[in-house]
Amino acid sequence: MKITVLTLFKDMYEGFLNTSIIHRILEKNLAEIKIIDIRDYSQDKHRHVDDTPYGGGAGMLMKVDVVHRALLDNSNENTHVILTSPKAKPLKQADLLRLSKEKEILIICGHYEGIDCRIEKYVDEKISIGDYILTGGELPSMVVIDGILRLLEEGISSASLMEESFNNGLLEYPQYTRPADYNGDKVPEVLQNGNHAEIRRYNLKMALKETMLYRKDLLESRELSEEERKLLSEIEDELQQRD
Amino acid sequence: MKITVLTLFKDMYEGFLNTSIIHRILEKNLAEIKIIDIRDYSQDKHRHVDDTPYGGGAGMLMKVDVVHRALLDNSNENTHVILTSPKAKPLKQADLLRLSKEKEILIICGHYEGIDCRIEKYVDEKISIGDYILTGGELPSMVVIDGILRLLEEGISSASLMEESFNNGLLEYPQYTRPADYNGDKVPEVLQNGNHAEIRRYNLKMALKETMLYRKDLLESRELSEEERKLLSEIEDELQQRD
Repeated sequence: MKITVLTLFKDMYEGFLNTSIIHRILEKNLAEIKIIDIRDYSQDKHRHVDDTPYGGGAGMLMKVDVVHRALLDNSNENTHVILTSPKAKPLKQADLLRLSKEKEILIICGHYEGIDCRIEKYVDEKISIGDYILTGGELPSMVVIDGILRLLEEGISSASLMEESFNNGLLEYPQYTRPADYNGDKVPEVLQNGNHAEIRRYNLKMALKETMLYRKDLLESRELSEEERKLLSEIEDELQQRD
Repeated sequence: MKITVLTLFKDMYEGFLNTSIIHRILEKNLAEIKIIDIRDYSQDKHRHVDDTPYGGGAGMLMKVDVVHRALLDNSNENTHVILTSPKAKPLKQADLLRLSKEKEILIICGHYEGIDCRIEKYVDEKISIGDYILTGGELPSMVVIDGILRLLEEGISSASLMEESFNNGLLEYPQYTRPADYNGDKVPEVLQNGNHAEIRRYNLKMALKETMLYRKDLLESRELSEEERKLLSEIEDELQQRD
């Protein structure tokens, strides 16, 4: 996969791209990432990329012609063009899965107050990473890239990352490693006794419990197996007894 | 404000902290940021920080004792301790506003399969940035820091950032800058005529329209003024006429 990012803050990607995990994935040639400075496409001798908004208002807007030139020079008809924007449904894991199947992705990072809205005509999809305001689209673009890269690596890896959070619609069960006793907090007996059937049932029950406590909405949008329904009613009984 | 991050990937923050926007905010002494390498708190001669999970399963877990030592050495009783985790309601702008009022924040970044769950005992709050899986907690920690820093800067700035997305519960209205005509896409007349009352009304209507089209859920959780109700019914009429 080829991923291109259009940004005014190219330096911001240095640490991200050179960090061991991302670096390791890139070394497997699963993806090629190019970070392009939008400013290189200004035709102004002062390399301006922004201008004041029509109708007044605070701040500056990125100019549509500059961004569009950068886009044209770094894409072709097969490129899936993404604009980071709050004007979109928040990103979900299913979006990352879908994007991980593209051959070429280009991400435009907004900044300042935003970009002249006419750029949207040249965009296939707007992506928001959540209901909060950030200084720009750089971190959102890294979130999208990070999420896609780990799916690409998972695709060629035999180790199951499928156990992780959200992949089966439940939160991950709590996990423990040595020491068996830390300041009086002990690892549950069942996880130490080596009975795989009991361990599986215990971990499923704990995953259901975590999901019920923290993300009930995930349970509501998921079909439950017979075993899961039984475990959930056990959990409810136990919680009631505590009250 | 003092913000400390505990991570295994310290280098990843370099670009982020040195980028112009964050750098500018840090130069105003609004916040002091410290990135701490969890590995420095390993007492193992090979500097191991992780171990296999009890009960089996893929991957490695960060050890509770190592992370806890790092936490104790970098916090005091006033520190608000955050753990990045999928086990939390997704972050909202209101959370950033609340966090921006803290004096000291410490963020623990999970990695690998996660951290021994017993660390949660020492944590005040778990934060997820959205329903998707990333390679680690570093990008989520940057999202939290970026969102807080811009609120701190807004606090001392007279320019209104309040117009931006979500702050009044609506998406931002579309904005335009020069040229007035780009490839046949023209800036709306009303934004060019200088009538401030008309411009305000037009922009409010467009903000309502964007919100209705992209994030109807935001409208449903918001009280509408008389004017807003009227504009919304205009928009509905216009959209029906187009069909």
